[in-house]
Amino acid sequence: MALVVMKFGGSSVADAEKIKRVAGRVISKQKEGNKVVVVVSAPGDMTDDLITMAEGVTDAPQDREMDMLLATGEQVSIALLAMAISHMGKKAISLTGPQAGIHADSTHTKARITKIVPTKVKNELKRGNIVIVAGFQGLNPIADITTLGRGGSDLTAVALAAALKADTCEIYTDVEGVYTTDPRVVSDARKIEMISYDEMLEMAGSGAQVMQARSIEVGKKYSVDIHVRSTFSPKEGTIITSEEKIHARRPKMEDVVVSAVTFDRNQAKLSIIDVADKPGTAARLFKELAKVGINVDMIIQSAPQDKANDISITINKADLKKALHALNKVKHELKASDIIYDDNVAKVSVVGVGMRSHPGVAARMFGVLSDESINIDMISTSEIIISCTIKNSEVNKAVAALHKEFGLNK
Amino acid sequence: MALVVMKFGGSSVADAEKIKRVAGRVISKQKEGNKVVVVVSAPGDMTDDLITMAEGVTDAPQDREMDMLLATGEQVSIALLAMAISHMGKKAISLTGPQAGIHADSTHTKARITKIVPTKVKNELKRGNIVIVAGFQGLNPIADITTLGRGGSDLTAVALAAALKADTCEIYTDVEGVYTTDPRVVSDARKIEMISYDEMLEMAGSGAQVMQARSIEVGKKYSVDIHVRSTFSPKEGTIITSEEKIHARRPKMEDVVVSAVTFDRNQAKLSIIDVADKPGTAARLFKELAKVGINVDMIIQSAPQDKANDISITINKADLKKALHALNKVKHELKASDIIYDDNVAKVSVVGVGMRSHPGVAARMFGVLSDESINIDMISTSEIIISCTIKNSEVNKAVAALHKEFGLNK
Repeated sequence: MALVVMKFGGSSVADAEKIKRVAGRVISKQKEGNKVVVVVSAPGDMTDDLITMAEGVTDAPQDREMDMLLATGEQVSIALLAMAISHMGKKAISLTGPQAGIHADSTHTKARITKIVPTKVKNELKRGNIVIVAGFQGLNPIADITTLGRGGSDLTAVALAAALKADTCEIYTDVEGVYTTDPRVVSDARKIEMISYDEMLEMAGSGAQVMQARSIEVGKKYSVDIHVRSTFSPKEGTIITSEEKIHARRPKMEDVVVSAVTFDRNQAKLSIIDVADKPGTAARLFKELAKVGINVDMIIQSAPQDKANDISITINKADLKKALHALNKVKHELKASDIIYDDNVAKVSVVGVGMRSHPGVAARMFGVLSDESINIDMISTSEIIISCTIKNSEVNKAVAALHKEFGLNK
Repeated sequence: MALVVMKFGGSSVADAEKIKRVAGRVISKQKEGNKVVVVVSAPGDMTDDLITMAEGVTDAPQDREMDMLLATGEQVSIALLAMAISHMGKKAISLTGPQAGIHADSTHTKARITKIVPTKVKNELKRGNIVIVAGFQGLNPIADITTLGRGGSDLTAVALAAALKADTCEIYTDVEGVYTTDPRVVSDARKIEMISYDEMLEMAGSGAQVMQARSIEVGKKYSVDIHVRSTFSPKEGTIITSEEKIHARRPKMEDVVVSAVTFDRNQAKLSIIDVADKPGTAARLFKELAKVGINVDMIIQSAPQDKANDISITINKADLKKALHALNKVKHELKASDIIYDDNVAKVSVVGVGMRSHPGVAARMFGVLSDESINIDMISTSEIIISCTIKNSEVNKAVAALHKEFGLNK
């Protein structure tokens, strides 16, 4: 008898009808002969509603109290789903994150899971229950509720699947799986049947919004097969798994050079001009950005002429104002002559483990972009990804051309 | 430094403005030099909204899941109130019932508190926090959330005050205290300054709706002074305490014969006619009513003529249909000739510990009712209460006359 963890997001449990539909889907999974654990998020807009309530009493809620407040959303979902399943004649029991043995650290509003002790989950499974667990929440060492931040419910599902040694972890979402690129941009984008953890991690980091990197990392670490699929369709989605498993199932996969083309339109480029070429300069600069919580994506330092050089970085566009403020504070100290920015840039990437054994992918990528008369600004590469920043307005053209070049439409 | 437990009901925390007002009141109490623990109910209509959501998925929700669902209401309140207090510059922390160490039995939706281990509450008080505890909820022996049923938040407050050996437990409500009778019926009803636990228990059992008997019982058992007062006014309300304390403070109180006049319009009378006068008959009858959960209030058995007699009882009007059904099932077995009912009856009572030392109260009561041409149907008496059933339409007249007769308007 297989053990399956199913995760449903907030839009899947937004109202009574949707909750009943999820209940039906969960029961089918059990009828197929599986033990089933379900992880759910807060219903629909509930989290937003709770945040609005908090804003009504204070403009600076403490993180601990925010967690206390927001954790109620998932608790509502689990109770209602357990009721709906029981109503349809199957045994179900709801467990909060703490009851399910999900321990987390004390970083309120963005805690990390420290360990899972799923004794109660296992016992309830043994009793024949479908076990419904609140996503997004855990218990810290002093028995306070902490929430896991963005993508927290996915993380609960994957980590719980790891702790239970589940056969698979199914993430139900509003898309049918992971695509070779965004179907809204390239109409002949194809659903990918299987993709490796590493490729998925690079995709998440380069603009694909299917899953957050942290859940994929846990999946990789504990070898959990993650099946991303649609809430609204019975079709198989995409399985995120190890390269070994993919190779075992589909030996020909090694012929695939590039698995997906991704893009991120929310980039901004910052250049610090004529920085003193001294040890510690870069450290000083990035420390200042880290202090205000800015994630730096690409970094390029130009070859020094005489004794000064330029440092260019890309960041999330939303952080631009904060970053400019931080950099202007150290401009004088770094002896920089100017700080310039461009918030009209995008990043286009090709991702694929096949690159490791197929040289020349970068050359092909640059060639395609050149043929399309697209100017490449910054370039960064790692083992299985090549990224270029280009003008925002040229994203669609670039993605379509790259998708075709690497045969992803076939 | 005194320790005060303050309890606010759902209407006091129904929206952001009201929550801020409660926060202000709590902070004032701390500024007066008290350590403060606050117990709150779910905001306004939230419990009803949650019940409606449950009804959307099933017409027979399991009690355990209902508790899981409903407990979120108080959790929302405590988080918001903690935020509001912090916003006003004072340290506050919220605790769920389980976190506050409130242990209960497993009777979901109407659990009883089994013990309170308020270690966390005490620690947070030591740290200078105003501690905000979710009312209405506890943790059962298998670490499930159970709710305490009607009046549950009052019970949490009184029991917590007992466990913490608090100096007083303040119950904030929408009335200004306990009155000599309902001011809506008798305009010169007066607020009672102090009343004994026993009198308050009799009042709760005979129609006064200020507090549920269970909270008063716990208050009496652990000698907790309960101060019932208004959320909307700074005036002192009514202190429910021991007879000894009342006597110590107000030696002349012994002259008070009757403390209050109460009434209950929701009564129904049932008579089982010509029941066989055999041992076990009454037992059989009441067992049948108990089986369907009906609380019997007054019981009168008429003196037997030959070998049969009549048994009359009063019950809550809402239970009438259920009671008739139950009694008709045993009618034949009991050889009863008929079962008749009257759902147009009310109960009027006079309550007062002074009755113990002042004989003749019953005679005065019957005399007053007779002077008003009010017919008395059933009578029941115990040490400190005398109750009569009368016609529903004569309640106002009876209450006004009794209130005057016993000098309660002075």
